[in-house]
Amino acid sequence: MVQVDDLPLAGEADDHFHDECGVFGIFGRTDASAIVTLGLHALQHRGQEAAGIVSFDGSQFHVERHIGLIGDTFTKQSVLDRLQGSRAIGHTRYSTTGGAGLRNVQPFFAELSEGGLAIAHNGNITNAMTVQRALQKQGAIFSSTSDTETVLHLVATSKGRDTNARFIDALRQIEGAFSIVALTSKKMIGCRDPLGIRPLVLGDLDGAYILSSETCALDIIGARYVRDVKPGEMVVVTEDGLESSFPFEIKQEPRFCIFEYVYFARPDSSVEGRNVYEVRKEIGAELAREMPVEADIVVPVPDSGTPAAIGYAQAANLPFELGIIRNHYVGRTFIQPTDSIRHMGVKLKHNANRRFIEGKRVVLVDDSIVRGTTSQKIVQMVRDAGAAEVHMRIASPPTRAPCFYGVDTPEAAKLLASRMTIEEMAEFIRVDSLAFLSIDGLYRAVGEAKRNTNQPQYCDACFTQDYPTRLTDHEGADNVRTLSLLAAGGQ
Amino acid sequence: MVQVDDLPLAGEADDHFHDECGVFGIFGRTDASAIVTLGLHALQHRGQEAAGIVSFDGSQFHVERHIGLIGDTFTKQSVLDRLQGSRAIGHTRYSTTGGAGLRNVQPFFAELSEGGLAIAHNGNITNAMTVQRALQKQGAIFSSTSDTETVLHLVATSKGRDTNARFIDALRQIEGAFSIVALTSKKMIGCRDPLGIRPLVLGDLDGAYILSSETCALDIIGARYVRDVKPGEMVVVTEDGLESSFPFEIKQEPRFCIFEYVYFARPDSSVEGRNVYEVRKEIGAELAREMPVEADIVVPVPDSGTPAAIGYAQAANLPFELGIIRNHYVGRTFIQPTDSIRHMGVKLKHNANRRFIEGKRVVLVDDSIVRGTTSQKIVQMVRDAGAAEVHMRIASPPTRAPCFYGVDTPEAAKLLASRMTIEEMAEFIRVDSLAFLSIDGLYRAVGEAKRNTNQPQYCDACFTQDYPTRLTDHEGADNVRTLSLLAAGGQ
Amino acid sequence: MVQVDDLPLAGEADDHFHDECGVFGIFGRTDASAIVTLGLHALQHRGQEAAGIVSFDGSQFHVERHIGLIGDTFTKQSVLDRLQGSRAIGHTRYSTTGGAGLRNVQPFFAELSEGGLAIAHNGNITNAMTVQRALQKQGAIFSSTSDTETVLHLVATSKGRDTNARFIDALRQIEGAFSIVALTSKKMIGCRDPLGIRPLVLGDLDGAYILSSETCALDIIGARYVRDVKPGEMVVVTEDGLESSFPFEIKQEPRFCIFEYVYFARPDSSVEGRNVYEVRKEIGAELAREMPVEADIVVPVPDSGTPAAIGYAQAANLPFELGIIRNHYVGRTFIQPTDSIRHMGVKLKHNANRRFIEGKRVVLVDDSIVRGTTSQKIVQMVRDAGAAEVHMRIASPPTRAPCFYGVDTPEAAKLLASRMTIEEMAEFIRVDSLAFLSIDGLYRAVGEAKRNTNQPQYCDACFTQDYPTRLTDHEGADNVRTLSLLAAGGQ
Amino acid sequence: MVQVDDLPLAGEADDHFHDECGVFGIFGRTDASAIVTLGLHALQHRGQEAAGIVSFDGSQFHVERHIGLIGDTFTKQSVLDRLQGSRAIGHTRYSTTGGAGLRNVQPFFAELSEGGLAIAHNGNITNAMTVQRALQKQGAIFSSTSDTETVLHLVATSKGRDTNARFIDALRQIEGAFSIVALTSKKMIGCRDPLGIRPLVLGDLDGAYILSSETCALDIIGARYVRDVKPGEMVVVTEDGLESSFPFEIKQEPRFCIFEYVYFARPDSSVEGRNVYEVRKEIGAELAREMPVEADIVVPVPDSGTPAAIGYAQAANLPFELGIIRNHYVGRTFIQPTDSIRHMGVKLKHNANRRFIEGKRVVLVDDSIVRGTTSQKIVQMVRDAGAAEVHMRIASPPTRAPCFYGVDTPEAAKLLASRMTIEEMAEFIRVDSLAFLSIDGLYRAVGEAKRNTNQPQYCDACFTQDYPTRLTDHEGADNVRTLSLLAAGGQ
Repeated sequence: MVQVDDLPLAGEADDHFHDECGVFGIFGRTDASAIVTLGLHALQHRGQEAAGIVSFDGSQFHVERHIGLIGDTFTKQSVLDRLQGSRAIGHTRYSTTGGAGLRNVQPFFAELSEGGLAIAHNGNITNAMTVQRALQKQGAIFSSTSDTETVLHLVATSKGRDTNARFIDALRQIEGAFSIVALTSKKMIGCRDPLGIRPLVLGDLDGAYILSSETCALDIIGARYVRDVKPGEMVVVTEDGLESSFPFEIKQEPRFCIFEYVYFARPDSSVEGRNVYEVRKEIGAELAREMPVEADIVVPVPDSGTPAAIGYAQAANLPFELGIIRNHYVGRTFIQPTDSIRHMGVKLKHNANRRFIEGKRVVLVDDSIVRGTTSQKIVQMVRDAGAAEVHMRIASPPTRAPCFYGVDTPEAAKLLASRMTIEEMAEFIRVDSLAFLSIDGLYRAVGEAKRNTNQPQYCDACFTQDYPTRLTDHEGADNVRTLSLLAAGGQ
Repeated sequence: MVQVDDLPLAGEADDHFHDECGVFGIFGRTDASAIVTLGLHALQHRGQEAAGIVSFDGSQFHVERHIGLIGDTFTKQSVLDRLQGSRAIGHTRYSTTGGAGLRNVQPFFAELSEGGLAIAHNGNITNAMTVQRALQKQGAIFSSTSDTETVLHLVATSKGRDTNARFIDALRQIEGAFSIVALTSKKMIGCRDPLGIRPLVLGDLDGAYILSSETCALDIIGARYVRDVKPGEMVVVTEDGLESSFPFEIKQEPRFCIFEYVYFARPDSSVEGRNVYEVRKEIGAELAREMPVEADIVVPVPDSGTPAAIGYAQAANLPFELGIIRNHYVGRTFIQPTDSIRHMGVKLKHNANRRFIEGKRVVLVDDSIVRGTTSQKIVQMVRDAGAAEVHMRIASPPTRAPCFYGVDTPEAAKLLASRMTIEEMAEFIRVDSLAFLSIDGLYRAVGEAKRNTNQPQYCDACFTQDYPTRLTDHEGADNVRTLSLLAAGGQ
Repeated sequence: MVQVDDLPLAGEADDHFHDECGVFGIFGRTDASAIVTLGLHALQHRGQEAAGIVSFDGSQFHVERHIGLIGDTFTKQSVLDRLQGSRAIGHTRYSTTGGAGLRNVQPFFAELSEGGLAIAHNGNITNAMTVQRALQKQGAIFSSTSDTETVLHLVATSKGRDTNARFIDALRQIEGAFSIVALTSKKMIGCRDPLGIRPLVLGDLDGAYILSSETCALDIIGARYVRDVKPGEMVVVTEDGLESSFPFEIKQEPRFCIFEYVYFARPDSSVEGRNVYEVRKEIGAELAREMPVEADIVVPVPDSGTPAAIGYAQAANLPFELGIIRNHYVGRTFIQPTDSIRHMGVKLKHNANRRFIEGKRVVLVDDSIVRGTTSQKIVQMVRDAGAAEVHMRIASPPTRAPCFYGVDTPEAAKLLASRMTIEEMAEFIRVDSLAFLSIDGLYRAVGEAKRNTNQPQYCDACFTQDYPTRLTDHEGADNVRTLSLLAAGGQ
Repeated sequence: MVQVDDLPLAGEADDHFHDECGVFGIFGRTDASAIVTLGLHALQHRGQEAAGIVSFDGSQFHVERHIGLIGDTFTKQSVLDRLQGSRAIGHTRYSTTGGAGLRNVQPFFAELSEGGLAIAHNGNITNAMTVQRALQKQGAIFSSTSDTETVLHLVATSKGRDTNARFIDALRQIEGAFSIVALTSKKMIGCRDPLGIRPLVLGDLDGAYILSSETCALDIIGARYVRDVKPGEMVVVTEDGLESSFPFEIKQEPRFCIFEYVYFARPDSSVEGRNVYEVRKEIGAELAREMPVEADIVVPVPDSGTPAAIGYAQAANLPFELGIIRNHYVGRTFIQPTDSIRHMGVKLKHNANRRFIEGKRVVLVDDSIVRGTTSQKIVQMVRDAGAAEVHMRIASPPTRAPCFYGVDTPEAAKLLASRMTIEEMAEFIRVDSLAFLSIDGLYRAVGEAKRNTNQPQYCDACFTQDYPTRLTDHEGADNVRTLSLLAAGGQ
């Protein structure tokens, strides 16, 4: 099931930022790889294009990496049979940017002089290219274009006396967002960057420790949620149990990615102690309070707009209706359209439910607008179905800037909000009114009084351009194209 | 994307009756096969296992039949390139029962002495085996076990003077439910059985006639809905336009399948003039009125229970909440579970949203209960998430009897409602209360005052065992096993 | 491994007539399907494009048909596991003419009123279309374009009192060349047409009867050769043993296809009591006697020209040398050549061994010339390698006419010998001399004194246009195109 | 087409040493990758399991590596389309030992600080593991288990001032056999180890330089053979032409692998100035002179024994006959045999031609005996076909020791000649007589008077255990198993 984005005939392409990765690991449990497979299946929304698992069977490491959905690739008995062992880590990714194919699929694995090391990573290292160039000058060979391989090299070339010391040495040299899960012949290591930009949680399955990007991957196997790995924390799981340390010099307060609440995380996950569905409903309620409108029904753009629409409808005391139906059957490819078909305005993914829309004043709720082309088509579809008025309400502030922390974003020039005022956007997507949630409204929905402008409580750079870390690779870049390549390809 | 039913690790397998087919045809339009592909994609919910398209290019017929989702098989350019022509019909089916593979995939095609004939069929011919045995005695060869091939043979052996006459001759010899779309070198024919058990609608795309099982397949390509083909009607589309006739002797009033409203049809379709989503909401409202309960939230079993849950919540004035999240990423296969994994109670498809369920009295709304095993697991999941009480409300009467009209139903002995009272069922699925919609409540939801017991307005045999046609093949059957084979394999 | 013919880059395409089928069956032996698989593997030279096996397990028939080499398709355990039973027949075919795909792959199978019947056939029924049209007028439906299905229909519609009678009834209505192997729930049947045009032999494996196109398929499994099935004979194998009968009215002497000796059969087979390799060597010797030439070495065009070249060299007392090396690694597809590559004259399949050819007077021996394009390229290659003289010797008379008996031949206009004299052909392929074996020489090589022109001992129509049967379908044909379609498609 | 070796049902498995690699490169020619594809197709006999191509398009490198035959994998248009550029190198390999899959497929590629570098290699570096351990201690990461990656690391970590200097620096640190083809953004480099153990030739196609393992890959594209790259020579091709240098300190005379003449090279290739087919015929003639026997016919074990058998027959003045027929159709897998089939002694690949063998005294000629099991089966087959006597003549001395220079050899204990006398071997394979060519006879066949025991002219270690280089990795090995793993896995 590819993203409809990629489909040649994609009238209602998925116009979203995409989180690029999910990570999962388990230490000390029979069928470790099968459990990682299930965990990755639950994290599939964080990356649909490729996945990998590395297991350790007590004497050997086993590596499998495949293009495609977990449910298509890692569920073959032959694949699981090759992944023997009671310890395993896995990774699912959104995109192998640059067409590099399997080379960039994680986890990365290398035999170091002290033994094997596998690393899987969610986030983006913002000085990876700078570090890579330095390593290459010393004779290092890179087999991928992934920033994760950089970490492997830093561990390999560290002069630290043992794996822990070398791992810490490596982590201290990297900048950006990183939630890392690693496996050696003795240990499973989990680590979050000092700002804790990407999520990572600790779970327990009958005594076996689990690391996972989200709690929904604990639920699928009935594992117990223990706690979030803390920003800047490194946890090391061995046969003797778990040890925690904080290897980084702490310079500022954590800044978790607020967009995880808006769109990335699955609604049944709890991140940083908050249930995502609950936050999204609260976002909808804030939106109803901030941006009310006279209307007859509230209709979500499914599925991402649904929780906020429920919250909006409850707060506004309007009926919540499934005015747009989504077709969940999507094949791997779709028709290369001829001109005659292109002009038909095919609706592969969504269909308006005319009976419920005709003559109604509709509040249409979506989570965000990226390029705006999908919104345009959805609105047209709702209008064609006879809506009297269409009022678009967006469950986040306007997205104006690219993310450099592990999210696939179009270059700034393609972000609708970076080149139009809200009025222009309303005209572009042809709605009677358009409103976004305020940044403070978003902070209220996650339980803050407001955004602390001196020291924001979250990373909200995509809304504010206020990047919480240095962008070292970017500083050396001489033009915007390099910048956006860094953003897209750094992962 | 296989039905989760078929998955070895199917903790929450899809416990539903399954409609077995969707049909679609278009006459007189460039790229006819691409349009049929899009139509079948919109009808994918009516059958996910295999599909076929036959096109006619003015001199030759082209046949393609493939196992798998439309979006995976018919969207390859090479496949579409082989399906030249401005006339095409297609079929998507739920299951190739008996493992017969491609042999049973429709449309069926044969070169008759007067030219080619392709037939696609939704429904089930209840005297197909009887007719087949008679034809075999006369020397006919069957290349499939499908009842559709029987129709082809009846046309071929008819002494009628032209195709129309031969087609009518064939139709008059068959019993049961049939919505047929056929293609010859000159005509596209659509026909519904005299009771109109299965749906079939007529559409128009810039002057080209369309036949489709449901209106949602008109919407995907922006075609105009013209009207439903009437029970017992045969429409013949030629270059000169459309002709309608009623070839059957009419013995009783129409009896459309009421279960199409409950589950089969897509919510954005209108069947027999009624919007499916609207009927489902009304079903939910009836259910709230008939079977009220003190509760805190209304939670649907997604996705099939969602419209009724919205209707229930609105009528009961309770909050509608997404207390169960569904994972739409399902691969083609899933893990062959080891014992260690089987005991984990893996939740591949659904996850309860603990934060919203904990401590709450939950009204859980689903559309139907077939075997009950899924309900049992869903309820357990909701209980594990901390629900204070679980009240199950089912948006249809208890399903007690198999369908012989083109629906895949388990044998009667496996239907929970055929072997337990409601109290026993409540205990089996471990709910605090369980209630089904009454048969009259269901009739009210579709706009009738009540079920007319002398002459029911719908086919509701799965609830009432009141079969509206002879079951000729069944009468000769000497045991229940044959009966259920007929039901399953007749298609 | 596709025929190099089909390759886009086919500098040395295989310029041969192609026998279209091999048949094999075994009755009463564990692992029957595995044995049929081995038998078909040994018959792979008779057809490389597709194959099928039907087995009977005592209660059910199992059918598998696949595109591709036996060694790629029927050797998968899952395929063999589905082919249970101790009785099985199989078929391998050269080409599914008309792109009809699996529809035309044999054996054909149907459930008749008296039970299942599977038929596999090598040859071509020359009145198949005429019979088919008559059957269609009576309402018969054809699911393929294969003449074999005609036989199935004739059996099905026969009024004979039992299977044997019906089978004989069917056989009496067909004309042409047919070596048939059939399987019912009780019997395995083998039959050759009255002229015995195609081969069929009877073997024995520890008491289990075998039918096979050639003896080499007995050798692969260590089975004993019993005897050839006789022209016009029908053998019926049951649990009680073998019965033989001669159901046809005999009008003329047998006329076995003499081209089986020239090219079709495998050199290690014995057909009609003669070892093929021995006959080919004798052909080479005859050629040396009839058409001697002053030369230094004898070089075969591998592999088909090798036995005749050995015979020629021994008779002419010249050294036999592998002056041309063949690359047996051929993939499924080959490069779509750009212009730049097309002009390179790529030699995918053959390479001249310069060291042995340079400065030599070379006798180049091949079995036949069809279109002549390959000969042209081979000669050019030998010239480029420095041959002083090239004398081409062909181990058969000029092929001037299409075969209607189960061989894939180009239309007559494309046969080099049908449009050029031998002198013109020599010029066309650019040899210093060109000579063919005389028709009497060929008859001498198979042990006859000479061809009996009144009543030829063999079918040699491709050399003489003297077709031994009526060509009923052809008589009705109104132009040459239909004729050649019949020839190609009748199979 | 897998080696029959690998087949579960491999009655006549291919009992040979296998050369593990072929290399090919071209510099400065449109469609470079298509030409490399053709070259690798001609070198397919040097490795059938996997292949790779790296091209450079003037700004970017493109890498494709696939498991399978060239003709199946690199001939897809999509693959070639991705390999843009006028410079490309490729590699085909026998085996990805250790199941490491694509990781070990060459060419290896890395982005070094000075730009991209791709390396393909035929041979084996006998100190690779020792060097690898040292590099890992310095922090190097290995992504494969291939010795070729070691070279890449040595280049990357060299302090040399430019690519040439760094490349030479790397080469000077490795020991063993290596014929290397490398590609940078500016150059194509070819190099042979100082002893010239593996072949490498220089060709020219309309001004574009070619490097190839054998001349037959020049012939396929009509390229001109220029000369062999000399032992210890490094040739560097740039846009300005070719430069030659000899970077190694020369300590001893060249020692080309004499087994290339016996079996590895294609008969139509010329290596070190000698035509392989001619040498093989001369080997056969030597054998006839050294080991004559009273007999009726000479029969080769096809195809490897054929040239020597022709030479034997001519020298002995006995008829050469194709007494054994080989089936060239081999699928990708073959039947998992049941016991019942295993006992049948299935002959998948070879069949004796009874008519020619019965009652005859047969000289059976093969190129070598490795494990002896195949010989045993072939002899049995010839005896079963009625041979009066079987005299086995082997076209090389007994193979007694493993090769450490890029050839896949079984461990010494499995070599028949390492554990039996010739008399015992004769008894084991059940022949009336068995004789091997003498080592001096082999040297005579390649044009030497005799083997110079003080300073042998060739590497003949597999016959003599006289290894011409240090076996550094081996010296540290503590047992024979490690030794043989090194031999097998070093590649």
